Amino acid sequence: MKLTTLAIVGVGLIGGSLGLAAKKRRLAQRVLGMGRNRVSLQVAQAAGAIDEAFLDLSDAVASADAVVFCTPVDRIAEQVLTAAAVCRPGTLMTDAGSTKAGILRAVKDRLPPGVTFIGSHPLAGSEKRGPEYADPDLFQDRLTVVTPTKETPLAEIERVLDFWRALGSRVKIMAPEEHDQALALTSHLPHLVASALAGILPPELHELTATGFRDSTRIAASDPELWTAIFVQNDFALLDAVARLQERLEAFKAALLTSDWVRLRSLLAKGKEVRDALGS
Amino acid sequence: MKLTTLAIVGVGLIGGSLGLAAKKRRLAQRVLGMGRNRVSLQVAQAAGAIDEAFLDLSDAVASADAVVFCTPVDRIAEQVLTAAAVCRPGTLMTDAGSTKAGILRAVKDRLPPGVTFIGSHPLAGSEKRGPEYADPDLFQDRLTVVTPTKETPLAEIERVLDFWRALGSRVKIMAPEEHDQALALTSHLPHLVASALAGILPPELHELTATGFRDSTRIAASDPELWTAIFVQNDFALLDAVARLQERLEAFKAALLTSDWVRLRSLLAKGKEVRDALGS
Repeated sequence: MKLTTLAIVGVGLIGGSLGLAAKKRRLAQRVLGMGRNRVSLQVAQAAGAIDEAFLDLSDAVASADAVVFCTPVDRIAEQVLTAAAVCRPGTLMTDAGSTKAGILRAVKDRLPPGVTFIGSHPLAGSEKRGPEYADPDLFQDRLTVVTPTKETPLAEIERVLDFWRALGSRVKIMAPEEHDQALALTSHLPHLVASALAGILPPELHELTATGFRDSTRIAASDPELWTAIFVQNDFALLDAVARLQERLEAFKAALLTSDWVRLRSLLAKGKEVRDALGS
Repeated sequence: MKLTTLAIVGVGLIGGSLGLAAKKRRLAQRVLGMGRNRVSLQVAQAAGAIDEAFLDLSDAVASADAVVFCTPVDRIAEQVLTAAAVCRPGTLMTDAGSTKAGILRAVKDRLPPGVTFIGSHPLAGSEKRGPEYADPDLFQDRLTVVTPTKETPLAEIERVLDFWRALGSRVKIMAPEEHDQALALTSHLPHLVASALAGILPPELHELTATGFRDSTRIAASDPELWTAIFVQNDFALLDAVARLQERLEAFKAALLTSDWVRLRSLLAKGKEVRDALGS
């Protein structure tokens, strides 16, 4: 895949990494970056992630043959609609948001003819924020989930898959709702739990934390705005995931209360079995 | 502090690291290692963590001027009593167990005159197990909590503090029960939660995990036997910690259910505030 002009909407950690990856792999001749924050745009441009900076979305996407939305999930649908009204027919439009179903519902039946938006979610990121943490290899060997709907033309799906593959990513197709339910367990619940674990720690115990606490709460340092938007978009699936965790916590409590050490060991062994299977 | 003979009971990750640290810092002329597993003893000796290997506890401690128990917490008290019966008066006895109150209760009033055991807990470790992962700098700049009781002679407390300082550790004195309550929140609860998060992950979602899930569940790979013993020793404090987490989870659920995004953001911001304060 070779693009003439790639437009990246939102030049934070993900958008900046996308620009660096596209340049490094010569995926696009020109990379345009759009953002609301002048400083972020300057940082992204100085880092070589984008060639030109835009404060106006329509200006940025008008000449692009591919547009990727790397903004918070509560802004993507609106920006897709704005961009769709001005972009050329056949422009490839996708995103990098952590939730999919809500965004796709919001743009469904509202795109002009010839314009397709396909949801994507590269499973890569960090608790860090901003283009200063951008990494050209962020997508390398990571999985990107692509979530077409029944209306998505097959050829467009292939183009989006090719786009992510060109950035070094593996790809997987899922239905948007299936993606959101899965990510509730694999990403949104761990964020919620990390935040809860950190949030209940009294100040006087800070010095008594070691590697275990730090690892298990690292993602609690993520941006609260971004994650509020993600939780809002995926509230029901996340509630279901919390309920599953609560059941498991009750099982641990019951084992502790009844001194059922065999059960306790078996619960811990199950956790180890799964974690060992994931690798380091 | 200079020791003639240091005996390490249990030559796993912690015991092996203790031996390497003692050799590197020339804390002891001779380091004896006692274990039940011949292979671990050989690995520890080959790594230079111990000079001599013993399968019999009494043989290992008889000539030592300091003994450190680095065995699972459910075996320490019994081994302290065995060692106390044969060691020389004035031998420094401490441990590296993750729980303190139960061990100290089990040895209270059962030590011969002139023999003192003081609980210690170096806040250092890993989900790895075995002397092959031993690290001479494991205690460097980490905190070791020392938990004397009202009966502990002041001079003996100073000796234990000096011992850990000589290994590069910072030290802090706490009452055993206070230690256990604190560690329930800073260590035992994160382990339980990591295990729960990993344990409820269905196999088909393994490929959809990324750095966040892996970080937050890393300690779930720890040894289930070791952690069952720790949970058993600290069951009430851990139950209390789980209850605090459950309260926080209920607050998240209530915010999600009532679409109270201000509350949700405030809960996430609290987690970030604490995690940011801990550093990386």
